[in-house]
Amino acid sequence: MTNQLTEIRKRVYEANISLQEHNLIKFTWGNVSEIDRQLGLIVIKPSGVAYDKLTPENMVVVDINGNVIEGDLNPSSDLPTHIELYKAWPEIGGIVHTHSTEAVGWAQAGYDIPYLGTTHADYFYGSIPCTRALTEEEVEHSYEKETGTVIVETFDERNLNPMTIPGVVVRNHGPFTWGKNAKQAIYHAVVLEEVAKMNRFTKQINHNAKLAPQYIMDKHYLRKHGANAYYGQKEKICKNDK
Amino acid sequence: MTNQLTEIRKRVYEANISLQEHNLIKFTWGNVSEIDRQLGLIVIKPSGVAYDKLTPENMVVVDINGNVIEGDLNPSSDLPTHIELYKAWPEIGGIVHTHSTEAVGWAQAGYDIPYLGTTHADYFYGSIPCTRALTEEEVEHSYEKETGTVIVETFDERNLNPMTIPGVVVRNHGPFTWGKNAKQAIYHAVVLEEVAKMNRFTKQINHNAKLAPQYIMDKHYLRKHGANAYYGQKEKICKNDK
Amino acid sequence: MTNQLTEIRKRVYEANISLQEHNLIKFTWGNVSEIDRQLGLIVIKPSGVAYDKLTPENMVVVDINGNVIEGDLNPSSDLPTHIELYKAWPEIGGIVHTHSTEAVGWAQAGYDIPYLGTTHADYFYGSIPCTRALTEEEVEHSYEKETGTVIVETFDERNLNPMTIPGVVVRNHGPFTWGKNAKQAIYHAVVLEEVAKMNRFTKQINHNAKLAPQYIMDKHYLRKHGANAYYGQKEKICKNDK
Amino acid sequence: MTNQLTEIRKRVYEANISLQEHNLIKFTWGNVSEIDRQLGLIVIKPSGVAYDKLTPENMVVVDINGNVIEGDLNPSSDLPTHIELYKAWPEIGGIVHTHSTEAVGWAQAGYDIPYLGTTHADYFYGSIPCTRALTEEEVEHSYEKETGTVIVETFDERNLNPMTIPGVVVRNHGPFTWGKNAKQAIYHAVVLEEVAKMNRFTKQINHNAKLAPQYIMDKHYLRKHGANAYYGQKEKICKNDK
Repeated sequence: MTNQLTEIRKRVYEANISLQEHNLIKFTWGNVSEIDRQLGLIVIKPSGVAYDKLTPENMVVVDINGNVIEGDLNPSSDLPTHIELYKAWPEIGGIVHTHSTEAVGWAQAGYDIPYLGTTHADYFYGSIPCTRALTEEEVEHSYEKETGTVIVETFDERNLNPMTIPGVVVRNHGPFTWGKNAKQAIYHAVVLEEVAKMNRFTKQINHNAKLAPQYIMDKHYLRKHGANAYYGQKEKICKNDK
Repeated sequence: MTNQLTEIRKRVYEANISLQEHNLIKFTWGNVSEIDRQLGLIVIKPSGVAYDKLTPENMVVVDINGNVIEGDLNPSSDLPTHIELYKAWPEIGGIVHTHSTEAVGWAQAGYDIPYLGTTHADYFYGSIPCTRALTEEEVEHSYEKETGTVIVETFDERNLNPMTIPGVVVRNHGPFTWGKNAKQAIYHAVVLEEVAKMNRFTKQINHNAKLAPQYIMDKHYLRKHGANAYYGQKEKICKNDK
Repeated sequence: MTNQLTEIRKRVYEANISLQEHNLIKFTWGNVSEIDRQLGLIVIKPSGVAYDKLTPENMVVVDINGNVIEGDLNPSSDLPTHIELYKAWPEIGGIVHTHSTEAVGWAQAGYDIPYLGTTHADYFYGSIPCTRALTEEEVEHSYEKETGTVIVETFDERNLNPMTIPGVVVRNHGPFTWGKNAKQAIYHAVVLEEVAKMNRFTKQINHNAKLAPQYIMDKHYLRKHGANAYYGQKEKICKNDK
Repeated sequence: MTNQLTEIRKRVYEANISLQEHNLIKFTWGNVSEIDRQLGLIVIKPSGVAYDKLTPENMVVVDINGNVIEGDLNPSSDLPTHIELYKAWPEIGGIVHTHSTEAVGWAQAGYDIPYLGTTHADYFYGSIPCTRALTEEEVEHSYEKETGTVIVETFDERNLNPMTIPGVVVRNHGPFTWGKNAKQAIYHAVVLEEVAKMNRFTKQINHNAKLAPQYIMDKHYLRKHGANAYYGQKEKICKNDK
C-alpha cells in the first residue's frame, strides 16, 4: 500500500502545483484529487495551504467517506464534492476544482459554455453545462456535498455522459473537471478555461453566434477518442492525455 | 520603539514590492501603509520613488496627523486618505491603494463591483461599493483627506462594515483595500482586482446577470471567517491571510 | 538530399517551437510544415507529440501525396490540409496552423477579420477571409483534405491572392497562415493573431467601426512589399520576414 | 559633438529596447527618436532592424531635414512624421511611435481616448485626440510627412497644448507620444496604452460612462506638474519622468 500511495501522492502534488503553471489559480484557490479504486482511498490537497508549502508528503489521504487515513492537515474543504463525483461516476479517477477566471465568467452568467468550434469538440462532446444554483436548504444542509449532488443531477437530467463531457461550471461558483487521473483532469481544466475564453471573444464579435454543426463535433471528437482514433501516435487509444 | 519600527518598515516595504509581483501597478502608481496603534505611528511608502529604489529604510514614518517622524523623503501624497481611514476604523491595521486596471474600469464606470459569485463571497461580504464623485469644493479644500472622508461616508450611509467588506472603488479614481495588516490589505487588493475581472467577463457574456443568492454569500463568507470557520487549518481563526 | 533535409528539418522544428514563444498554442495544438519544391518533399510536425519531445530528427518527411518517406511517427493529422494548399498555390513554401485564441474568436463568429488599420495593411492586402463551414458530406468524406479545398475555394471565389493575403480563418475551427517558408508563415500567424485582437478591441469600443480607406492599404502594403518598397534596409525586397 | 551623440545614441537605443519590456511592440513595430536642439540633429532607430540587432552604434543620426549624417542604415520610415512634430513643437525633445494594441483599438474605432479618471489626468490634461484620416492626396503626396501634419493640425484646430497632452492616436493607425526626452516619451506611451485599456474596460461595463469632472483633472494634473506640484520629492518640478 505504501508504494502505491507514494506514487499517487506525488501525482496529486504535481497536479496541484501545475495549476499555478497553467495560470488557473490565485493563492490557494484550487484543489486536485485522485482516487485509487482498489484501495478505496482518495489523495487530496490540504485545505488553505500556500502552494509553496505543499509537498507530496502533506497531501491528505482519506477514505471514500472522507475519514482522514493519513495526514495531519485538514483535507480541502471541497472534498465532499469530490467524493460525490467519485461515488456517482466509477470511471473517473481524478478531479480538479479551480476558480479560473474565464470559466467563472460563465458560471456567474449562468450559461452553458456553448459548443462553438473544434477546439471544444476535440475534448468535450457537447456544450459544457452550467448547473442550477443550489437551494438555500441544500446550502445549509451540506453545502460541499450538495455541490456534488447538483453536478451529478445536471448530467443525469440532461442525459450527459461525464466521460465525454469531462467538466461543468457550477452556477455562481466555478469549474470542476475530471478524467481518468489527476493529470487528465488538469488537461481538461486547461481546455475548459481556454474554450471559455474563445467563446467570450466570439460572443463579443458576434453576440448571436450559433452552435457549430453536430457532424463537425462527431468528426473532431472521434478522431481523437475511441477505437478509430487517428490523431497522435499509434500506441495510444485516447489521445488527449499528453 | 526602534525594533518595532524595523519590523513594520520591513513589512510595509515588502507589501509595496509585492504590488509589482501581483501586477497591480505600473511605475509608482500604488502605496501601502501599516499603522502601529500603540505607538500611534504610520509607516508608508515615500511619494513618487521608483520601486527599485525602495528600501525598508526609506519608508516614511508619520504620526496620526501626518507629521513626518522619521525619514528624509515626502510620504505618499495619498497619506491623508490613509489617515482618515485609520481614524474612522480602529480595527484596520494596513491600507493599500493602487490604480489596478480592472478595478479602475469599475471606478470609472461609476458602478459597485456586484456580488456575483463565491470568489467574491469568500472575502467580501457584499458588493464592493463605488463612492460618489468628490465635489469641487471637496477637491479644492483638501483633496486627499476628502477622498478618505467620502469612503467613510459611503460605508456609513449604506451601513456597511469595513471589516467584512475590506475594499472600495473611489469614483473616477481607483481601489483602496485594507485589512488587519499590510499583508492582508494586499491580499484583498488582489481579490478585488480578480473579482472585478471575473465580473467584467460575466457582464460581457450576460449583461443582465443577477446578484448571487444571499445564502451562498453567508455560507462562503462564514466558512472562512469567524468562530465556526472550517476552511484551512485549525490554528487560524480567519483564513484569508495566507 | 540528406543535407537539404537536415536544414529543412531544423527550420520546421524551430518554427514549431516558436509557436510556444509567440503564445499561439497550448499543448500540441499547432503544426508547421515546409515544402522543398525541387525534392517534392514536405517536412511536418508529428501528430500529438508534446513540444518538449520534438527534435529536428523526429519531424516527419512525406511526399506530395502524404506518403511517409522518413520518420517513425505519424505526421500531423492536418497534413492533408497542408497538401491541398501546397498543390493549389505553387508560390507558397511554408504553412502554419494553430488554434490561437483571438483568431478562433473570429472563426467561431463566422466573420472575416476586417481591414481596419495599418498594422493589418502592412502584411495583409485586404480583409482576412473566413471560410464557409464544411458540409456534412465533406466532413465525412475526407475532413482534413476538404478543409484545404474549402480554403482554396474561398480564395478562388472571392478572387483573392494568397500571396498578398497570406492567411485565413476556417469557420468554427481556426487560422491557417502561409508564406515563402515556415518562418514567414509564423510571422504571418503572429500578425493575424494580433490584428484579430486589435479588431476585437475596436469592435468593443465602436461596434460600427468602418473599414479603413483602400488608399491607406495600398500605401502601407506597397511600402513594405514589391519593387518600390522603402521600409527596412536596402538588401531586402520584401521586408516582412524579419 | 561626438560625446554628446554618444549619450544620445545610448538613450535612444535604451528607449527603443524598453518598448519590448513594456509590451508595447511586436517584432520591429515601433520607433523612438530624440533631438538635440543645439546640434540640430535627431537620433532615431534604423528601419526594420530586429530588436536584438540594435546597438547604440547603429542608431541613425539625421539632420532636421532628414539627411543621414551618421550611419549606414536607413532611418525609420516614420522619420518624416517625427520631423514634422519636432519642427512644429520646439519644446519637445523625444518621440515614440508604436502599434500598441489597446491604443490601436481606439485609433481604428476613430474615437478620442476620453478623460474618464485620475490615471489619465495625472499625465494628460484632457482627452487624448484621435486625428482625422489622411486624405488620398495626402497619402499619395507624402504619407509619413502628412501624418505629422495631421497630428499638428489636430492640436491646432482643437486648441490643444502638446506639452500638457503629450500623445495622440492617428486614425486607423496608432499612437504617437512625446516628451522632453525619449525616456519621458516612453513613459507617456505606457500611460496612454494603460489608459486606453482602462477605458475599454469602462466602456464594456457602462457604455454610457461620462467624462470625469474638470475640477478633478485640474487637481490631479496640477499636483504633479508645474510650480505648485506636491507629488513626489522636492528636487523635481515635473514628476512624471521617473
